Amino acid sequence: MAKHFADRMLDAIEAKQAPLCIGLDPMYERLPKQIREIASKSRGKMSEQAAAAREFCQSVIDVVAEHVPAVKLQSAYFERCGPLGMQAYFEVADYAHENGLVVIGDIKRGDIGSTAAAYATAHLEEAILGEGDKEHPVSVDAVTVNPYFGIDGVQPFIEVAKQNGQGVLVVVRTTNPSARDFQDFKDDDGRRVFERVAERVNDWANQAGCVGDSGYSLVGAVVAATYPEDTKLLRDLMPNSLFLVPGMGAQGGTAADAAVAFHEDGWGALVTVSRSVLYAWERPEYQHLGEVNWENAIEVAVVDTKAALAEALARRAAMA
Amino acid sequence: MAKHFADRMLDAIEAKQAPLCIGLDPMYERLPKQIREIASKSRGKMSEQAAAAREFCQSVIDVVAEHVPAVKLQSAYFERCGPLGMQAYFEVADYAHENGLVVIGDIKRGDIGSTAAAYATAHLEEAILGEGDKEHPVSVDAVTVNPYFGIDGVQPFIEVAKQNGQGVLVVVRTTNPSARDFQDFKDDDGRRVFERVAERVNDWANQAGCVGDSGYSLVGAVVAATYPEDTKLLRDLMPNSLFLVPGMGAQGGTAADAAVAFHEDGWGALVTVSRSVLYAWERPEYQHLGEVNWENAIEVAVVDTKAALAEALARRAAMA
Repeated sequence: MAKHFADRMLDAIEAKQAPLCIGLDPMYERLPKQIREIASKSRGKMSEQAAAAREFCQSVIDVVAEHVPAVKLQSAYFERCGPLGMQAYFEVADYAHENGLVVIGDIKRGDIGSTAAAYATAHLEEAILGEGDKEHPVSVDAVTVNPYFGIDGVQPFIEVAKQNGQGVLVVVRTTNPSARDFQDFKDDDGRRVFERVAERVNDWANQAGCVGDSGYSLVGAVVAATYPEDTKLLRDLMPNSLFLVPGMGAQGGTAADAAVAFHEDGWGALVTVSRSVLYAWERPEYQHLGEVNWENAIEVAVVDTKAALAEALARRAAMA
Repeated sequence: MAKHFADRMLDAIEAKQAPLCIGLDPMYERLPKQIREIASKSRGKMSEQAAAAREFCQSVIDVVAEHVPAVKLQSAYFERCGPLGMQAYFEVADYAHENGLVVIGDIKRGDIGSTAAAYATAHLEEAILGEGDKEHPVSVDAVTVNPYFGIDGVQPFIEVAKQNGQGVLVVVRTTNPSARDFQDFKDDDGRRVFERVAERVNDWANQAGCVGDSGYSLVGAVVAATYPEDTKLLRDLMPNSLFLVPGMGAQGGTAADAAVAFHEDGWGALVTVSRSVLYAWERPEYQHLGEVNWENAIEVAVVDTKAALAEALARRAAMA
């Protein structure tokens, strides 16, 4: 029996002393020139874009593995690399595991039950990499899912995750401006759709067999850092769920905004940053390092982000 | 400039005299023994499951191409075949095009704007199949998308679709029992989330450049046949959107339920059936044909479904 997802996640956070996840969004146009050159030579069976995505993500993992407990792979950027992009996705997941990282698959899938079960198998059960003697299985440790279909679309993921010590992170509050289009739709008590989603996620999280020794469930939630007033409310509505918190950095959220997603004891959330770290050498404060030193820029940005988050959490603890 | 999606879709429906789409859900366990045997021999680079999915879907296309205007590929069942499953997905899409069919990619993706743009490129721009001299581009004619992120998550798909004469079908009302979990959440006027989604889809559908000569928009909607009382309401809320209508057959909806999705002139919807046709030889009424005649069973089931739908539409027209 594999160890419970939330317990593993908390151990990993403790070991790296940072509730920080690096999001792997390999945008081909923004990749360093060196990476695109290596990829064009090593192409083989894979498209150049897929090879470049793999090369870049593996290099990022080399840099960040000692600093953070987890990486998040954004499926869209791998699918974008052509039909073989998912091959690169699983190869990167495999590489992250070899480097001791927890791997979150950011797939945001959602459909009716039978189809959701197929997605759960595709992403949480074992995909086969390699050929012949080198064949070996790989899967991610947790996936993000879309709540629009209700529990029918989520339960198949929970069932597989329960068997294998994996996690299911339900999208509750998204970072984008038009999140308000439907998520803020109010009933006559002024309660909004995302609050209702949160209440149901809390029910799902507290099903038999879902809560680990740490008190956290394998059913977590994706909660944007960009609406801090809502984050606080959601923290109370889903006390046993780990929050995956995007939106800090490129999307405008601050470390203080992200800190609201944590319980007062400093646990319960994992902040995820992508573009502000991956493409750090494009930012004014790191541009002096130069594109050729992009790995160095990423490392400095990770260390800075980690420090900013630690400071925001310490300030919050002092105020509590 | 490619012809407008809705205009192409209506032409195809007229040519085949049937507003019927066959959903390709290749569930490995349910595939005919012959298919699994062929796949195990022709394996090559692809996994056995992916090869079987491709073989089965191509055989289904051989049978149904003369009877129906469109097929819908369920991404989950291709992803389930391992990392190379999307290769099979695009090869099947290519084969369907060669056989004169409109191809809908049932991917139900949804995310923030930059990520949605990556998904739109992945699924609506051209994927490359083949190698060397045989390289050629392929993409689907329309995709399904999830509305939970609001317009930010949908507009990137619309922008690409507008360029290429493709369609975007927004999930509004789903067929599953727990569709009611969030979709039925009511405001103080008794108006529900899915009605609000429908109103916004209607706005999106009527943006500049979205409506074709037929009066229908490239922005359509996925509307379940399983809640006919809601279907009628949705038909009024989104007059210019083509409806993709799942839920007839294996999910319990009848031809009469599906007929409600059409305007009184008999246009405006495309009913999609999957398992009740694909695995027809398992059904009591077709079992006498035997698994070995599975292609025959599929053809009979398609012809029967087409007749049932035509009859339901004729009955509805007579009552109008």
